[in-house]
Amino acid sequence: MQQADILLKADEIADQYRSIQSHICSVLEHADGRGTFGIHPWEKDIGGGVTCVMREGSIIEKAGVNFSYVKGPYGEKMEEILGESADYYAATGISSIIHPISPMIPIIHMNVRYFALDNGISWFGGGIDLTPHYIDLGEARRFHQHLKQVCDAYHPGFYPEYKVWADNYFYIPHRNETRGVGGIFFDRLKPGDQIGFEDLLSFTKQLARFYPDIYREIMHNKKDCTYGEKEKMWQKIRRGRYVEFNLVYDRGTKFGLESGGNTESILISLPAEAAWEYHFEVADGSEESKTLQFLKKGIDWLNVEANN
Amino acid sequence: MQQADILLKADEIADQYRSIQSHICSVLEHADGRGTFGIHPWEKDIGGGVTCVMREGSIIEKAGVNFSYVKGPYGEKMEEILGESADYYAATGISSIIHPISPMIPIIHMNVRYFALDNGISWFGGGIDLTPHYIDLGEARRFHQHLKQVCDAYHPGFYPEYKVWADNYFYIPHRNETRGVGGIFFDRLKPGDQIGFEDLLSFTKQLARFYPDIYREIMHNKKDCTYGEKEKMWQKIRRGRYVEFNLVYDRGTKFGLESGGNTESILISLPAEAAWEYHFEVADGSEESKTLQFLKKGIDWLNVEANN
Repeated sequence: MQQADILLKADEIADQYRSIQSHICSVLEHADGRGTFGIHPWEKDIGGGVTCVMREGSIIEKAGVNFSYVKGPYGEKMEEILGESADYYAATGISSIIHPISPMIPIIHMNVRYFALDNGISWFGGGIDLTPHYIDLGEARRFHQHLKQVCDAYHPGFYPEYKVWADNYFYIPHRNETRGVGGIFFDRLKPGDQIGFEDLLSFTKQLARFYPDIYREIMHNKKDCTYGEKEKMWQKIRRGRYVEFNLVYDRGTKFGLESGGNTESILISLPAEAAWEYHFEVADGSEESKTLQFLKKGIDWLNVEANN
Repeated sequence: MQQADILLKADEIADQYRSIQSHICSVLEHADGRGTFGIHPWEKDIGGGVTCVMREGSIIEKAGVNFSYVKGPYGEKMEEILGESADYYAATGISSIIHPISPMIPIIHMNVRYFALDNGISWFGGGIDLTPHYIDLGEARRFHQHLKQVCDAYHPGFYPEYKVWADNYFYIPHRNETRGVGGIFFDRLKPGDQIGFEDLLSFTKQLARFYPDIYREIMHNKKDCTYGEKEKMWQKIRRGRYVEFNLVYDRGTKFGLESGGNTESILISLPAEAAWEYHFEVADGSEESKTLQFLKKGIDWLNVEANN
């Protein structure tokens, strides 16, 4: 594709992503029942976006749903990171994160993105992952089953490959633990023999649309679970780990901060509050200890044994 | 120096640093009046250290004073970062950070370190910087005057050069603000015509010994300042920025986490609690707004006009 075609295609995809952003916000507002999203458009020299932020809902403490569409000269730094040779790029995507009030409800994250170069190469990337403060095996199994269902509608190879990719990506080496129960992650997904461009686009849109539905179900199941000070403290400690992952390892965050992106929109992923304790101790056999045991790569979540 | 000499020298310096660590803890315990340091020795394959942690003193909320002494084969990754060619290295140092309970008292950080290679090259590095939640110009001026005094006793060129280095090092690009009012920072300081090895060692020891005295004076001046919920919230937001600096930019933290250091000791620098708000707003003319105005490089703190 030439530059003009690339831009036309990116414009079109950006429009579609933008409208899914609105859909996500509306489903989440409805599910929360009280919180509403503030809508904050932004523009910089490289492009712009819309950051939607909910604070202090009835279930959701802090949620961000970001849409962005940026384009411009393909610089040396990008070339270094992406390893392609081009003059011009366009990129659009949605990224979202939800931090609930209750420690019994997990944190969730979703991102889909389209990246195009004027040398004719373009690709999709994205992922969804779930980070429970307290692991619920049935919830984790259902979450993975949902993701497999979306994946299978496009390609039977997607779920097995992207589940492993998520295990490796959403991982905190200095803690030797995964961020949560994983999910799926994929990058540089290009049309090929087995799946065409429009299907890939449709796959990312389907994931993004499905995301608030998955979370609505979890919110519904968990909203009446009781908890106390101990669980709130543990939530803050787990949120600290979330901050560590996002600031030390997450490629989207690093790339965004380094490339002069919109800092406030990028860091909307951070929780309202987080805590750090030196050698935080959990009691043997406690729910906290059980959670830590499951923060591992390689768990077959589809077939994990659960009572619910 | 040969490997054996390097190790003898590093052993000797490590002993001296270890004894300064005890001194720092004892001065801080005395100044706080209630808090005591827990002493946690650790050992890994590359060496070991002692992590001293105070929690919930009367003035100090969380303080860490780390000593470490590591040595081993000089790997490819180190060569990449440090750009020297060698087979074996030894490194020892003290690093410390203090987070106070009161938002009216600043956070302080100090680090000194000695690094030696078996090719005969060795150097010192270190720094001290102050991060007020609320800037007090008189306090910042006195802090810089103290640092200048320590520096001047060794070389008149140290303070001017290392003050600028601190401005550039303790800086958060994605926020376009400095971490605080700076201080001094230096690295790869080697003996030369103007100053010998023993004087450099003495300089780092003097800095480390002086550090708790500086903070004791600040604690004393500020411990009775009143504050409320607004100031506590602002403190949490500023602590969030501190976390951003440490996890995204601080070279010691990155190097430590990447090289398989002791995670809990490295991350003792993080505050007990931190907060993030999307576009946190400060009122025009408020103390918060005044503080933000002074989070800039290039301020001549020695001559800043203050009422105290």
